[in-house]
Amino acid sequence: MGIASNTVRRVMMGVLMGVFAGVVPASHADEGMWLLSNPPLERLKRDHGFAPSSDWLLRMQRASVDTGASGSFVSPRGLVMTNHHVASSWIHQLSTAERDLTRDGFLARTLADELPIPGAEVSVLWETQDVTDAMKKATAGKSGPDAAAAIRAAISELEKSEQARTGMQCRVTTLYGGGKYELYRFRRYTDVRLVFAPELAAASFGGDVDNFEFPRFSLDCAFIRVYENGAPVQVEHFLPWSATGAQENELIFVFGHPGSTERLLTMDDLASERDVRLPARLRSLWRLEEKLEAFSSRTAENARVAGDLLHGVANGRKAFTGELGGLHDPELMRAKWDDEAKLRQAIERDPALASHVGDSFERLAAALQEEAATFEDDAIIQRAFRGSRLFQAARTLVQLGAEWPKPSAERLSEYRESALPEVIAILEAHAPVYPEFEKMILAQGLSHLAEHFGGGRPEVLELLGGKSPVERARELVDASTLADAAYRKKLLAAGPEGLRELLESSADEPLLSLVRSLDPKLREIRARTEGGIDAVKRDVYARLADARFAAFGTTQYPDATGTLRLSYGTIKAYQQDDQQIPAFTTYRGLFERDAARDDEGFTLPKPWNDAKSKLNLDTPLNFVCTADIIGGNSGSPVVNTKGEVIGLIFDGNIHSLSWAHRYSDEKARAIAVDTRAIVEALRVVYKADSLVAELTGVK
Amino acid sequence: MGIASNTVRRVMMGVLMGVFAGVVPASHADEGMWLLSNPPLERLKRDHGFAPSSDWLLRMQRASVDTGASGSFVSPRGLVMTNHHVASSWIHQLSTAERDLTRDGFLARTLADELPIPGAEVSVLWETQDVTDAMKKATAGKSGPDAAAAIRAAISELEKSEQARTGMQCRVTTLYGGGKYELYRFRRYTDVRLVFAPELAAASFGGDVDNFEFPRFSLDCAFIRVYENGAPVQVEHFLPWSATGAQENELIFVFGHPGSTERLLTMDDLASERDVRLPARLRSLWRLEEKLEAFSSRTAENARVAGDLLHGVANGRKAFTGELGGLHDPELMRAKWDDEAKLRQAIERDPALASHVGDSFERLAAALQEEAATFEDDAIIQRAFRGSRLFQAARTLVQLGAEWPKPSAERLSEYRESALPEVIAILEAHAPVYPEFEKMILAQGLSHLAEHFGGGRPEVLELLGGKSPVERARELVDASTLADAAYRKKLLAAGPEGLRELLESSADEPLLSLVRSLDPKLREIRARTEGGIDAVKRDVYARLADARFAAFGTTQYPDATGTLRLSYGTIKAYQQDDQQIPAFTTYRGLFERDAARDDEGFTLPKPWNDAKSKLNLDTPLNFVCTADIIGGNSGSPVVNTKGEVIGLIFDGNIHSLSWAHRYSDEKARAIAVDTRAIVEALRVVYKADSLVAELTGVK
Repeated sequence: MGIASNTVRRVMMGVLMGVFAGVVPASHADEGMWLLSNPPLERLKRDHGFAPSSDWLLRMQRASVDTGASGSFVSPRGLVMTNHHVASSWIHQLSTAERDLTRDGFLARTLADELPIPGAEVSVLWETQDVTDAMKKATAGKSGPDAAAAIRAAISELEKSEQARTGMQCRVTTLYGGGKYELYRFRRYTDVRLVFAPELAAASFGGDVDNFEFPRFSLDCAFIRVYENGAPVQVEHFLPWSATGAQENELIFVFGHPGSTERLLTMDDLASERDVRLPARLRSLWRLEEKLEAFSSRTAENARVAGDLLHGVANGRKAFTGELGGLHDPELMRAKWDDEAKLRQAIERDPALASHVGDSFERLAAALQEEAATFEDDAIIQRAFRGSRLFQAARTLVQLGAEWPKPSAERLSEYRESALPEVIAILEAHAPVYPEFEKMILAQGLSHLAEHFGGGRPEVLELLGGKSPVERARELVDASTLADAAYRKKLLAAGPEGLRELLESSADEPLLSLVRSLDPKLREIRARTEGGIDAVKRDVYARLADARFAAFGTTQYPDATGTLRLSYGTIKAYQQDDQQIPAFTTYRGLFERDAARDDEGFTLPKPWNDAKSKLNLDTPLNFVCTADIIGGNSGSPVVNTKGEVIGLIFDGNIHSLSWAHRYSDEKARAIAVDTRAIVEALRVVYKADSLVAELTGVK
Repeated sequence: MGIASNTVRRVMMGVLMGVFAGVVPASHADEGMWLLSNPPLERLKRDHGFAPSSDWLLRMQRASVDTGASGSFVSPRGLVMTNHHVASSWIHQLSTAERDLTRDGFLARTLADELPIPGAEVSVLWETQDVTDAMKKATAGKSGPDAAAAIRAAISELEKSEQARTGMQCRVTTLYGGGKYELYRFRRYTDVRLVFAPELAAASFGGDVDNFEFPRFSLDCAFIRVYENGAPVQVEHFLPWSATGAQENELIFVFGHPGSTERLLTMDDLASERDVRLPARLRSLWRLEEKLEAFSSRTAENARVAGDLLHGVANGRKAFTGELGGLHDPELMRAKWDDEAKLRQAIERDPALASHVGDSFERLAAALQEEAATFEDDAIIQRAFRGSRLFQAARTLVQLGAEWPKPSAERLSEYRESALPEVIAILEAHAPVYPEFEKMILAQGLSHLAEHFGGGRPEVLELLGGKSPVERARELVDASTLADAAYRKKLLAAGPEGLRELLESSADEPLLSLVRSLDPKLREIRARTEGGIDAVKRDVYARLADARFAAFGTTQYPDATGTLRLSYGTIKAYQQDDQQIPAFTTYRGLFERDAARDDEGFTLPKPWNDAKSKLNLDTPLNFVCTADIIGGNSGSPVVNTKGEVIGLIFDGNIHSLSWAHRYSDEKARAIAVDTRAIVEALRVVYKADSLVAELTGVK
């Protein structure tokens, strides 16, 4: 695991909502998460003597799959490769106490055995169009809540009309913090089936201890298949499997969906990240991790049920800890000061730029102070019940009931027309609900609100309904009707007006009541944030982006936005303290580490020990490269210049966590599974001959 | 573990410093932590038909041993029984990577094998004297900082003169929140040796999962021996071992040192506990527990080194969580409201009382608001480097250098003359210092300050010295000379004036410099707290105590203060949800639980499995009783009416955590090891025949 499971990426996207970013000057060798519409052809040619053709790039674009994080087509029959930890919430969802696919793994030997995943969907970025002019026109001369409403309306309208025109899913992405807007048209697939997953113990060998570390020995892969009309989808664009595999120092490319970087925050914004936002996030994660650990330790079934969320929380905690460590490192901060000084000088030297930028730095600093005053309060309210399927369903239903009857452009953005199919699919999915787990999540969430805001506050007492958090949670779950997918489906079938009426008549559904109490506050936070700090950031960072384009040229990449990017680099060893860390590990190393440690997380499953004598122990297992990645890149294919897949990104090392704020290739590395290890395991450990044949084209 | 290891008790005492408490009306059957100078003879006679004689009570008093928590003499040759988790910091201190007594246990088969524990000391309360009049006279007519200075001076002077007069260690204890003062004269013993400890896995079977739970299966005992002049001390007062053991429904007594209860806080103070103090403490514990877990998971040696602190932190976290749960329970809060309403009515009805109490409630509420504004800031500064022996030594040396030359009455209270021997003994002790552990503690402490106060704050930057927390911690530990006990001894040998000079000339000792930067702030917090909230509480709670005495009579017990108390009750099963929980568990249950769970914390050591067939599996292992206990009671003997020892308190169940604020015997219970289990294990598992003979008097 490591760089963003579904859960974690969504956490990051959620928590970081409202953080826009500017143009990042790519000063280091292989730095950059590049738009496929503006690839660094000159730099590639200059530094590596290779510039991909537009055909090559289009094939990569359409072979890339948005799985919540990243993935890629690796056969013409819709087979998608991603990480185990990206697919883990799906695998977890398909598991029961009797048949624990997370623990035991899964292999479908025939198409008929492939397991449909309720509510899962993936998509492929088919076409891109620059819509900057239209979007900038919409907000011209506006600021604050007006600007926020205008851009929301413009995006919603454009997406809706494009969706109607093309029949494809359409999304507008804000790039360069508002300097550029692109319209993306996606092919969306909602019949997704599980093909193969190794045992969790093999996929995340080393657990939390080895997460974000290298040398590493994880087979963090999974295969899913995309269906259309009941049959595997036939895809023209996919990545052929390399017959030879990766070589040290080879030029490689990575395609994926990095979630969020903050490389061009102003120093004020960075200080706020260091002193306000990251500490607040970590406080919530430390707390939640302890609650989940306590719940999990009680019974094996509890551990199974809470496992996926716990892994996500631990992963986020370790990632944020590393990011914060970077911001406490005076060297990194000095470098960031230098970057900002250069930008400020360039602006000062040019009167037109100076006038365009105006008091942007000061306005942002003032908005950040306002944000700091309520950041933790807001985050705790918004995320108190994270992990509860029932609460999630209740909140979505209550909000949908209010939003659906409105025109799309006036709705909360996640309920705009273009986003509705996904919202409805999740509500209708038959995902399992575990009452004891739900009670724990709700109880700890209620306690968190009471701890943070005070157990005597009227708002808290209203949520508690005269009971203790534990009693109230028990009541909420025992009396809720929302666990029943058929009931949720019935509500949705009533349509916009009908849903609202049905909700009003179900006043005694306790979770819906709870959400109704909370919803005004959630809306107030949204409105205040979008019209306040977000609007200021969008305006300020767009102006700073313009200044950077003017001062440093237009070959710049935008901060990560969870949309498709190209990164590149080489497979490369590194020096850590006085140790040389080799670029590759092997299966031999895996078994050695298994033998050296007897604690949890370092114990290989039985099939591995049985197969050991037959495995080629010299097979490369994991490797490191300098490609610029971040949370969301999990599941990204590593591709050679021929466009063949040679690896599967699943993590970065501990030094790479600073990449959130600044790239360096001194010690920081992305970590990938070597495709040769995948084939060797499929062949020898899992005897998955037909899957191997499909991947390699060799029987 | 559970109710207060040394570590935890000190935490609680430290964190709760400044919390005074009032008179507690003992309305429930077996409620009360009674002063031995004011035992509940009438209630005992009335409810149980037994009133102990003063001889009986004096024997109990002098057989009770203050071990940091509790303990008792169980042989005339100075043998002391306490909990493993009370002795655990000593056992940990005596362990090395090669000889891990924590993991493997320890048995001295002869006196010569008993292991001296560096820096350990225990004491026995020999005599008690009421000094209320003298102390009240000292503060009469004073308030705020003046009152704080006056009471500090009066206590210090009295202790010093009494110590000189009697040659015994003397301490003044504030009782009933200032309603009464007692002078305690102690026999102090500084040659303490380890006799027996079981393996940690047996002592705390069930680990964090079973901590504070029942049914329970822990052999949480240890034996130490007190020496004087190189030979075992001969004691007249000790507890004979019961030949028959405990019976269900039997009347039992518990003698020990409950650390702190808060049963008579005003509702405002209780709300502050719920909304300010407990949440702040928990935030720090969640964070520290995660840091310790991460460090421990890296290597087995790390786990060994950090184990004792980690157990203490986890125990504190679980205890505070339970206490907070109680304060979030509307039933408990309603009962507290009723209690306060009764008190207020009694005061209102009596003009003299009303005049005496005056605006006490309002003054306290105002002081609590002030406290709330800085509580978490202060606690984080005071406890940032908790667990670092090097920091502890540096802080003690710097403060001692400043305090020692002053008259005793003007010093910070922990450096007053009567307390110095313990301070010096700890500094001179050869306790092991683990550099990697020290670095981790210092780094996380520096990060905590940066997270909480801001990484750009000048005070934080000064502590960091231009480095990252990790780099700075490395520098501090690598360059420190304080790990060397001989060096510390040399400093102390210089005496009051000499120490100050030596410290001034060691300006390059980095940890001493760090403490010098921090010390003014630490002193400012102390002065502000003692002259502010503490002074107000002392005055307010003394007035409320007077009101309670007047309204409800003088047979009341004071809130716990870490000094010797008597509790009583019966051995009694209870009902939990729809389950009847029996009063006793057995060795059979232990082996069943071992077989049912295969996770860490539930695995019996090999000697136990080897001995299983020879053990009498029907031997009672743990039992529950209604005696009123709290953190600090760990190691308390459970005694029958004949004055024989039949059990060893080591924990309370989860419901007992609310006892911090209110006693109830519905589901809450104290948990003890049955002495029959101790003898059975010593005989069969450990073959400790001479120890058994010493305990039972039977060869």
